[in-house]
Amino acid sequence: MKPAGPNLGINRRTLISTLALLPTLSPLTSISAAAQTQTSGDALPSWNEGPAKQAILDFVRDTTDRANPKFVSPETRIVTFDQDGTLWVEHPVYNQMMYCLDRVPVLAAQKPALKNIEPFKTVLSGNREAIAKLPMRDLEKIILVTLTGMTTDEFEAEGKKWLASAKDPRWKRPYTELTYQPMLEVMSYMRANGFKTYIVTGFGQDFVRLYAQQVYGIPPEQVVGSALAVKYDYDKDGNPILIKEPKLMLNDNNAGKPEGIHLMIGRRPRASFGNSTGDQQMLEYTGAGDGARLSMLVLHDDAKREYAYGPAQGLPDTKIGTFTPALYAEAKKKNWTVISMKNDWKTIFSFE
Amino acid sequence: MKPAGPNLGINRRTLISTLALLPTLSPLTSISAAAQTQTSGDALPSWNEGPAKQAILDFVRDTTDRANPKFVSPETRIVTFDQDGTLWVEHPVYNQMMYCLDRVPVLAAQKPALKNIEPFKTVLSGNREAIAKLPMRDLEKIILVTLTGMTTDEFEAEGKKWLASAKDPRWKRPYTELTYQPMLEVMSYMRANGFKTYIVTGFGQDFVRLYAQQVYGIPPEQVVGSALAVKYDYDKDGNPILIKEPKLMLNDNNAGKPEGIHLMIGRRPRASFGNSTGDQQMLEYTGAGDGARLSMLVLHDDAKREYAYGPAQGLPDTKIGTFTPALYAEAKKKNWTVISMKNDWKTIFSFE
Repeated sequence: MKPAGPNLGINRRTLISTLALLPTLSPLTSISAAAQTQTSGDALPSWNEGPAKQAILDFVRDTTDRANPKFVSPETRIVTFDQDGTLWVEHPVYNQMMYCLDRVPVLAAQKPALKNIEPFKTVLSGNREAIAKLPMRDLEKIILVTLTGMTTDEFEAEGKKWLASAKDPRWKRPYTELTYQPMLEVMSYMRANGFKTYIVTGFGQDFVRLYAQQVYGIPPEQVVGSALAVKYDYDKDGNPILIKEPKLMLNDNNAGKPEGIHLMIGRRPRASFGNSTGDQQMLEYTGAGDGARLSMLVLHDDAKREYAYGPAQGLPDTKIGTFTPALYAEAKKKNWTVISMKNDWKTIFSFE
Repeated sequence: MKPAGPNLGINRRTLISTLALLPTLSPLTSISAAAQTQTSGDALPSWNEGPAKQAILDFVRDTTDRANPKFVSPETRIVTFDQDGTLWVEHPVYNQMMYCLDRVPVLAAQKPALKNIEPFKTVLSGNREAIAKLPMRDLEKIILVTLTGMTTDEFEAEGKKWLASAKDPRWKRPYTELTYQPMLEVMSYMRANGFKTYIVTGFGQDFVRLYAQQVYGIPPEQVVGSALAVKYDYDKDGNPILIKEPKLMLNDNNAGKPEGIHLMIGRRPRASFGNSTGDQQMLEYTGAGDGARLSMLVLHDDAKREYAYGPAQGLPDTKIGTFTPALYAEAKKKNWTVISMKNDWKTIFSFE
C-alpha cells in the first residue's frame, strides 16, 4: 500500500472501510519464520513461467554478468520493496493501524481521562460502525497518541508483544505469516546476486523494523518508512533514552518515497517493487535512472486466494484499493511489468 | 568535530577563527586513494602498543569469539565514526565550510544581486578578517544558499569538482588525503571482523556521501549526517529530479547524533569513535548499551605532526577545539578510552 494522506499518509478508505467486519483478535502465537532462500535449480519456484518471472530473471542475469552491457557494479545493486500489498497482505486493514487501535484500551487504562475524549471514546465503545466512520484527523490522533510518548525500548517491547498475539481475521494466523512466498523468493534471489534489499514503506519504520529481520531477512537499517522524531533524554537513573515524539519527520508515501530513499540510502535504486499509487514516484524515480532498471507492480486480482481490488475490479480511482486504473495506465506507458497474483504466482503463502 | 550550534550545528569559533590565515586554494588534483586494508599480521600497524590499541584489539577479539561471554551476533556489529577531527583533519576550518565559501563567487556570477547583499558581499570582498568575523546567522545563510536550490545531481557534480581541486593550505594536498591512517586501519580491521562501519557526522550527509566510498570504503547509505530536505519534482522534459531545499531535517550534532542513529540505523552501535563535545551523546548512548561496548575519543595533542587543541592545550571550554576539559573529565568518569595522537599513533597520514 501507500496511502496518500497529506499528513500521516493514511488512506482512510482503505484503512477502515471494512473495519466493522473484523472479529476480535485472539492472542498467543509466535512471529512467523523468515525469508526462505531458494537458490538451487529454479530460483523462483513459486512463480509460474511468464513475462513477470522472466523480467526478474533477465534483470538479475543482465546486471550481474560482467560481459553484459547492462552489468552494474555490486555496490550499486540496491532494490526497494514497498511492504503492504507488495510483500504481505494489506487488506482489509493495514496491520499497523490495527496495532494503534488495539493500543487505545491499554492507554486508556493508564490515562482514564482518554475515556471521555474523542476519538478514543468511540474506539473504546467497540462500535465498529462508528470506528469505521472516524475521519482521517481522528485516525491521525490515534496514531500519534499510541505511537509516541514512550521510549524506543518500551515501544519495541509493546510492539513485539502485539505481533506475537494479533491474528489476521481471515487466515487466523499472525500477520507476520501473511507474506507472499513469491516475493520472499525474489528478495532471497536478489540478495544471493549481490543486491541489497530495502523495505520502503508508508507505515512507520520503527514498527516494521521490529520484525523485518525475522520476516524478510532485512535488518533494521534497511527499513525506510514514515518516521516520527525521537528525542534524546535521560531516565531517572541518568541512563540515555530515546523518546518517541509526536512530530512527523518523514512521510514516506508518494513523493516521500524517493525523498526518503535519498535521505536514508542516498542513491537511486536499480529495481523497485510496489502495488499502489503511493509507490508510483518510487517506481518512476527508479525507472528514470540510466542503465538497467526494473520497476514492477503487484496487481491484486486473485479474489479466491487473496483479494481482488483496483483495476482487477474495474474500480474507479476513488474506491478502495490504491492500485487505480490510472496507475495501471501509467505502468503500461512506462513499460513497468505488472505482476498478476492470479496468473504469475503458483503459490501465494508459504503455509499453503 | 561536532559543533553545537542550535540550528545548522556549526561552531562558529572553530569554523572561521583562523580563516583569515588561509591562502588561496589551488586547483587540479584528484581525490585520494581510499581505506587500505591491513589484515596480515598486525591489523593496526600504524598504532603504537598501548592501552588505546589494546582496547580496540580486545573489543574485536571478545565480540567475535563465540566462546567469549562478550560475543555479539554479526548483525548487531555496528560501529559509528564521527568524521571531522576523528577520521580526518578538521583544523583550521571544516572542509565543507570552505566549499560553501568557495561557492559564493560562483553563485554571485549567476545571481549578480547577491553581490550587494550581506553576508555575500563580505565573502566576495575577499577580506578574510571580515569573513572571520561573520556571525553564526550569516554563516548559516551562506550554507543554505550554497547547498540548496539545485538538483541532487547538480550538487554531486559541483561537489566532486571542488573535492578534486581544493587543497588543504598546510599540507598542500586534497582534503580527501588528510585522513588518519590509524583510523582507516581500525575501519578495515572492524569490517574484516563483521562490523558494519558508519560515519555519523555533524556536517552534511549529501556532501560526505560524495567521497565516503572512495576515501573510507563506506557506501552512501552508511553515512549519517545533518540533512537538508529534498523535494521530488520533474525537469522540463518530465524526468524526475530531487531538489535540495533550505529546510533542515536532521541536525546530526550532540543529541542529534543518537537521534540520527535511531532514524537511519535503528539500533544502538556496539562501538563509537569521536573527538568532541558534539560526539558526547553518541559515545554515551553507545556505552550505555548492554554487553560489550566501546567508546573512544581522539585527542589532538600533536602540535608537530597535526595540531594540538582542547585539553592538550589546557584551553577552557570557550576556546577553539570542541574537545573540552569537561569532555575529557566525562571520558575519564565513564571509562572511555582516549586516543593520544601523539603517543598512540606511529603514523598519522598515509602519505608520510
